[in-house]
Amino acid sequence: MSESTGSPPGGGTPTVLVLDAPPPAPPPRLGALTGRARVLHADAESVARLLPEADVLLVWDFLSDAVRHAWPGEGARPRWVHTASAGVDRLLCPELVASDTVVTNARGVFDQPIAEYVAALVLALAKDLPRTLDLQRERVWRHRESQRVAGTRACVVGSGPIGRAIARTLKALGIATALVGRTPRTGVYGADDLDRLLARADWVVCAAPLTDATRGMFDERRFGMMQPSARFINVGRGQLVVEDDLLAALSKRWIAGAALDVFEREPLAPDSPLWTAPDLLVSPHMSGDTVGWRDQLGAQFVELYGRWEAGRSLPNVVDKERGYVPGH
Amino acid sequence: MSESTGSPPGGGTPTVLVLDAPPPAPPPRLGALTGRARVLHADAESVARLLPEADVLLVWDFLSDAVRHAWPGEGARPRWVHTASAGVDRLLCPELVASDTVVTNARGVFDQPIAEYVAALVLALAKDLPRTLDLQRERVWRHRESQRVAGTRACVVGSGPIGRAIARTLKALGIATALVGRTPRTGVYGADDLDRLLARADWVVCAAPLTDATRGMFDERRFGMMQPSARFINVGRGQLVVEDDLLAALSKRWIAGAALDVFEREPLAPDSPLWTAPDLLVSPHMSGDTVGWRDQLGAQFVELYGRWEAGRSLPNVVDKERGYVPGH
Repeated sequence: MSESTGSPPGGGTPTVLVLDAPPPAPPPRLGALTGRARVLHADAESVARLLPEADVLLVWDFLSDAVRHAWPGEGARPRWVHTASAGVDRLLCPELVASDTVVTNARGVFDQPIAEYVAALVLALAKDLPRTLDLQRERVWRHRESQRVAGTRACVVGSGPIGRAIARTLKALGIATALVGRTPRTGVYGADDLDRLLARADWVVCAAPLTDATRGMFDERRFGMMQPSARFINVGRGQLVVEDDLLAALSKRWIAGAALDVFEREPLAPDSPLWTAPDLLVSPHMSGDTVGWRDQLGAQFVELYGRWEAGRSLPNVVDKERGYVPGH
Repeated sequence: MSESTGSPPGGGTPTVLVLDAPPPAPPPRLGALTGRARVLHADAESVARLLPEADVLLVWDFLSDAVRHAWPGEGARPRWVHTASAGVDRLLCPELVASDTVVTNARGVFDQPIAEYVAALVLALAKDLPRTLDLQRERVWRHRESQRVAGTRACVVGSGPIGRAIARTLKALGIATALVGRTPRTGVYGADDLDRLLARADWVVCAAPLTDATRGMFDERRFGMMQPSARFINVGRGQLVVEDDLLAALSKRWIAGAALDVFEREPLAPDSPLWTAPDLLVSPHMSGDTVGWRDQLGAQFVELYGRWEAGRSLPNVVDKERGYVPGH
């Protein structure tokens, strides 16, 4: 989706405020804006003070909640906010949603990396690789039978570009894959079909945006309807899952295993029971972050900035009411 | 390849000798031969005594060397030997090669499972899953960048059905994959191209048959020509690799990592340095063994037996001089 962002400022050099990620890790590629923008850097402390003077906000620290707390409401504020992430859940507050500020996301950068990551998890679980690594550590030679993935069934929840890339990759491995979105369309099942598809899936993959409609959608009821042989994989947002319900489902063997790359609270606390839950693979929110990703994210912002300063329409515009970039 | 096996015996019920796998694990599906064959079971001790009275030998314990030691030379011997494996290296002795006994293998059963297993290893290494599992055990949240597999280059050594299935699966993941066989043909590079292809591969996958021409082919010289970022995967036979040379290549960082599913001596001894070599993933010869594999192998033998008893030609006939089933 692409739409006009109104116009860049009439005169003078626009101010771009960058909310940096800690430890101070500013985006690469912003050198391209030299002479075209005044670039200021903020952290969670200073962002509230600097926001009113910014024309553009680049949310580089996409794990931060700082913007939603610092957003100036009716006061002077950026007309355009770009986040270096696919999800915008941490960013949107009612005042930002209500405002005429345009929000764009990093649509496209993470699709293929996350699809590969999900394929890696599916294959690792099917081939029992975690157990193989455990046995290697113990120097124990123990042959086991593993599973074919071709001919199994996956249900991918979330029909944006990431979900679609996951579905394409799983299909390429011979997995019969159903894609579920909010509303049915060609190649995509609607929310009404979800429970029926979950009940027959060998692999349930969550790549949905976090919105009021999806928060906590994977709960006791839904884990209870999955097959005992099913595995659940979450690469969306932690809050899509009721973590206690997943823990119970795993310990009661309602499902055969799970892999989480995202969590209700990140980083995951050292004393979280998730680290040691049976048949649960924990990874630190890294599914989309392949070598070169920061560079790609920086380049994407520079490209969008060029469009914005020329008064052209921006791609990847978030529907702030829905909480994601609507697409075909 | 399919060819005549001569004829089944003129009169009486043929004797099928089964070399069982220890612990006594006879093949499923042989009930189908009731009334059509006298089925005897042998172990490594009794096989020499029983071989002369067998018309057919089913090598179910495909990890055993017993047959090559027990083969009766010029004496009475089976006219057909079928092995429940793709490789025939443990079976062939000069007397069997010289005889008119037909040897068939389990061509087809392992292709897709092994291809999936190789894909699992490639993706697990690209996504740093072994390290993720280590960190999970330590309850440490440590984000890392991982690698894309799409756009990388693989060299698959071995152009039989297993190598071809591996190549198809890696290509489906967007990996530019070169297949190398003994002689060049459409879609297959010849041995003369091997070193050039190894030198530019991100993934070197060995799925070659073990023959005099391939024994020890992955040695100091070949590891020395690989890229420092390359990973080596062996799902063929352990003796294709000079294990000490691989250990040296890993410890000197000539290559970035490796995964071995097969070893010079199996099971791998508890004191082998391979268990703890840096960036080496060890698995217990299980790449092809997915749920149902024993059943498939039993069914395959029953099907071939039906052709043999009807005097029809057998598929999967091994070229005993070359040591594998020649194909297109």
